This record gives sequence, C-alpha cells and structure tokens, in this order.
Amino acid sequence: MRSTPGWQADGAGLRQTVLRRRELRPDDVAVRVDYCGVCHTDLHAVRTHSGEAPLVPGHEFTGVVTDLGREATRFASGDPVAVGNIVDSCGECAMCRAGQENFCHEFPTLTYGGTDRHDGTSTLGAFSREYVVRDEFAYPLPAGLDPAAAAPLLCAGITVWEPLRALGAGPGTRVAVAGLGGLGHLAVKLAVALGADTTVVSRSAGKADDARRLGAHDLIVSADQRQMAAARDRFDVVIDTIAVPHDVSPYLGLVALDGTLSHVGHLGAVTVQATDLLIGRKKLSSAGSGGRPATAAMLEFCAEHGITADIELLPSARVNEALERLERNDVRYRFVLDLSDLPENR
Amino acid sequence: MRSTPGWQADGAGLRQTVLRRRELRPDDVAVRVDYCGVCHTDLHAVRTHSGEAPLVPGHEFTGVVTDLGREATRFASGDPVAVGNIVDSCGECAMCRAGQENFCHEFPTLTYGGTDRHDGTSTLGAFSREYVVRDEFAYPLPAGLDPAAAAPLLCAGITVWEPLRALGAGPGTRVAVAGLGGLGHLAVKLAVALGADTTVVSRSAGKADDARRLGAHDLIVSADQRQMAAARDRFDVVIDTIAVPHDVSPYLGLVALDGTLSHVGHLGAVTVQATDLLIGRKKLSSAGSGGRPATAAMLEFCAEHGITADIELLPSARVNEALERLERNDVRYRFVLDLSDLPENR
Repeated sequence: MRSTPGWQADGAGLRQTVLRRRELRPDDVAVRVDYCGVCHTDLHAVRTHSGEAPLVPGHEFTGVVTDLGREATRFASGDPVAVGNIVDSCGECAMCRAGQENFCHEFPTLTYGGTDRHDGTSTLGAFSREYVVRDEFAYPLPAGLDPAAAAPLLCAGITVWEPLRALGAGPGTRVAVAGLGGLGHLAVKLAVALGADTTVVSRSAGKADDARRLGAHDLIVSADQRQMAAARDRFDVVIDTIAVPHDVSPYLGLVALDGTLSHVGHLGAVTVQATDLLIGRKKLSSAGSGGRPATAAMLEFCAEHGITADIELLPSARVNEALERLERNDVRYRFVLDLSDLPENR
Repeated sequence: MRSTPGWQADGAGLRQTVLRRRELRPDDVAVRVDYCGVCHTDLHAVRTHSGEAPLVPGHEFTGVVTDLGREATRFASGDPVAVGNIVDSCGECAMCRAGQENFCHEFPTLTYGGTDRHDGTSTLGAFSREYVVRDEFAYPLPAGLDPAAAAPLLCAGITVWEPLRALGAGPGTRVAVAGLGGLGHLAVKLAVALGADTTVVSRSAGKADDARRLGAHDLIVSADQRQMAAARDRFDVVIDTIAVPHDVSPYLGLVALDGTLSHVGHLGAVTVQATDLLIGRKKLSSAGSGGRPATAAMLEFCAEHGITADIELLPSARVNEALERLERNDVRYRFVLDLSDLPENR
C-alpha cells in the first residue's frame, strides 16, 4: 500500500492523519493533489459523519501526475490533471455508453465515500496530498487555466454546465441563476459565455455589484414581490443553486412557457404544486456532476473563455476554518485548499 | 335572463333544478348541450362543495348552436360545436397571445366554478340543457366524430394531447402511459396515432387486453418489481394519469435520459427526491386543458384518425350513479351524460 497525509473526519472536524492508498493498478495514475475545492457536500458529509467508515472529503481537485500504471497511456508523468466527484463506473450500461458515467446503472464510484469496484474498500477523498485514480477519470487540465481556481470546475462547474447545455442555454435564451454561491457564480459565468441573456436572482440587492462583475445582465431581488411579479414567465431556464431547503414555487413563477427550473443546490426532497408546473407547462429538473465527455468539453470551454472560479485559497491546515465559514456562507465564492502544506507522498 | 334545466349540487349529490343563464352578449352563442363527459374534477367538486356558490359541474361537452349574439360570426344556428373547461381569458397577456389561454395571467374563466369576467357571476357548468359561451371558446365539432364519444376530448383529450405534443411524442419516441382511465386511455390512442411506441403501465395485468385493443404495443405491470426494473430509463415520455396521490419515484425510474414525466392525473402537491430527477437528468412536468389553437388542432387530429373516448352513455338523470361509479373506478373509460332527457331551454 501507498500512504499519504490527508485530512480525516474526527468528531466535529477534520484532523491530519496518514491515509492508505492502493498500489497502482494497470490503468491507474497517481496524482499529487495541489488544490482541492471545498464543496457543500464536504460540509454535509463531515457534519453528518457516522464514523462507520473513515471519511476524507474532497472531490474537485487539480494536480500533477506522478506515477502511472503500465496500461495508463493517457498521461505522462508531470502532466497537469483535474479530477471530479466520480472516479469509476461500470462502463457497460446504457448511461455509461451514452457518456453519462455519472448516471451509471451500477452507480458511479464516488471520489470519497464510494465503494471501489475492485477491492470493495471505501474511497477516500482529495483533502490529501496524493490520489490514485483510474486514468479514464482524470482529465487533462488545459493550459492557461489557473490550477487553484480551476479545481471547483470539477464539481461546481460541471454541475451547472450540464443543465445549461442540456436545456439549450445560448444566444437568444434567457437564463436566471438563483443563489450566488459556489455553484451560482459559475453558472453566471458559464451562461454569459454561452451567450445567454443572464440574470441573477438574489435575496438582497447587496450582490448587484458582484453580479455585474461576473457578467450578469440583470439582477432580481427575490424578497421584492414587485420585481418577482414583473419577472413572471421571463426565463427559459432557471438554475436554482440555493443550498438549503426552500420553496421552489416563487422560482417556478419566473420560468417561461415550456421552460425548466433545474434544482441543483439542495439534493433532498422537493415538493411542488402540480399547478405551478401545469400553468405554463413548466418543468422541474435537477443535475449533479457530469459524464466524461461533458466534463472534458466544459474544461475546454472554460479554457477558451478564461473561466475559473472566484476562490479564496487557504493552506489545507485551515480546512476546519473553511468549513465553518462555508457553513455561514462567508465565502466569495469557493474555498480552495492548497495541499502543498502537506508533505509529498512517502 | 334565460333559464335552463340542469343538475346542481345539493349536499352529497346532484339534483335537477332550473338554472339562470345570461342573455346573449354580442359575442356569445347559446349551445344546446347534448352530451357532457363526467370528469374526476366534477366528482371532486361535488364531494368538496362548500355550498357558498351554486355548483353545476360539467366542462367537456358537445351540442348544437341554437342562438347567436350579433357579433358572433364564427358559427351559424345548427352548427355542431364542442366546448371544454375554459370559456374566456384576458386575450392580452403573453400566454393568451401565445395561444395558451389556459395559462392566462389573469387566470382563464373556468366553465363552471369560475368568475365571469364581465358580470362577476359564478359560472355554471354543462350538466344542463343549455350553455351560453363566448364564440371564441366554442370549437367546430369536426364531421365524423360521434358527438357523445367526442365530448371527453375537450378535457381529458386536450389534457394529454398538450404534453404529448410539447414533449415531442411521435415516430421514434417511446411513450409510457401510467394509469388506464379517462385520461390514460385517450393518451394511449393519441400517442399511438402520433406514431410513438406506446406502453401502458398498469397495476395489474388485467388491462392487457384493453391496452392492446387501444393500440398499445406493450404493457408493464407496475406491481411487478422485475418488470419495472427491466423498463428502467426506457421512455422518453411518461404520461402519469393516476388520479390519486401516489409516489412518482417508480414512474420517474422509467424515464430515459433527458426524458420527462408529465404528472396530469392528480393536481395536488407532488414530492420528488431531487436525485430521482438528477440521475438521468429527468424532468417533471404537468399539464391540464389547452389553448385554443391546440384544442382545435387536437379535434382535427382526432377526426382524421377516428379517435374518440370509450364511453358509457347514461341519461343525465343517472348522474349520481355515474359519480358513485367513477369514485370506485368502475367505468371504462368515461361516463358521458345524455342531456336529452332534460327539456330544451324554455
């Protein structure tokens, strides 16, 4: 077994420990993790961790290939790569064949908290200095993308990219992004770059400057009934990135005839009134992660348009501070951990 | 005022009474109601009637024009017509301008239990011998359609036609219809005629013969876990016509990548797990009624393809029996009342 330092759940927070990683299989690469984003999922996992299996969060990271299995031909040592929240899938079901490994019928292997398809162990995430991954699930990091600010593209970015693409966001379409956090600010940048007329929907007017700076064309204050009423039926696509349980009815009200609200910020139960869908023949969808072709395309698109996340970079030793601040939404817009404060693999 | 005999809610059931109808406005026509379908909405309205406003159900009917306002130029006396569940709208909002009067921003005037836009009275439905309606909301009944069996097209038919059309049902698409009742049996006939590969999803195998007779290509028994699992992700469109509250999760499981479940049978709150939408990037929608262009197109399509409802025709005096039997799903597939047992308008 290989070993690497990392941050493991221990009661309410994370503490530094030494993790075991598998020896490389023929199609594996070892990646030195340089930067890893901090996602709401990480926070949720740490706060609800039962302690049954070890938990090391982290599923949106960039780094450099340091070692290769003998059949891992997609990369060379020293290549910059990026890895997201899935690291394996069956490869044979209809979803995998359609390039939607994130919907694999056997359920994709998650980057942490998943079950390895070969040895049955629980996967440990990238809040650590090394990650071992099947080469098919590592992506070349395009030149020109800052590796720290690119890390959040691998989960937050692809999660909003998939619905924007699937719902046809582009020139002539009107997109609203509800909630301006890690997911939301990337949704705005991507929608604008795709050519959509893009509006931020935020609880307060306080984010108007940020919305404009991100490229949004308009801002609607959701607490202002008059503004919400005036925007009724206005948007072909609403990307709802609000990270806490909330009533989707006011946001469905913004959706145009035959339009869609994609509910990506909070993955629990959602209750809608059928009539809120019926009137205007609106649709409710969700999204999360992406397949391999879409992830690669998203990275290329981001490189072409100079899109990365707006991040606050912290040494990984401050991971607990990052989680606490994320919990109270005190981040614009994504924490990224710099793992270089951990010694390299030994 | 005009007066006409009809069936009015009185405690638990309906009793015959004499209703007042308005005198014809310039753009009104008077219709002798010959046949009116009995919809689940009627049952619900009667069973929950508070007694505040008089209730006369009935919102899918056919008949003959007997009188015309001076500006009602679309029809002549004696013309066969059909009327559905909306009888007026503002005509000026974006939805009305898009031909979706059913989504009118000022809310369309319902055929019964609505509020007339001009005199503020509560509308009374077509379980009566005469109905007075703005001519724009009466449709020519195409020749060749049996007027009794055509009546349910005006609510049940258009309610499933709209999502089938909006979701692109046709050659090369796979459509499942869950629930084989008034809505469901018409959804099957319409989907088959549109050229879609059409499957019925029913609780039991008992409806296999009916499904085949209606033209369906396959039947899935929803109680059979094995059959449901085998049909996972199979259908581009699932029309869920089940008329009682139910868990939509098993039916979402049948939806293919980027496909849609249209929840049309029960218009209350619907709770979904976001992950049931996320995995496969599925959509939840709803539908009900239709705009004027779509309603006219649906009637033409039905005439062309010889589609009407499978009905059980009862004299209107047996309306309470129809409601009771509908309540226990004892109808294949729609009751239609024959109003000729009521004297004509006097």
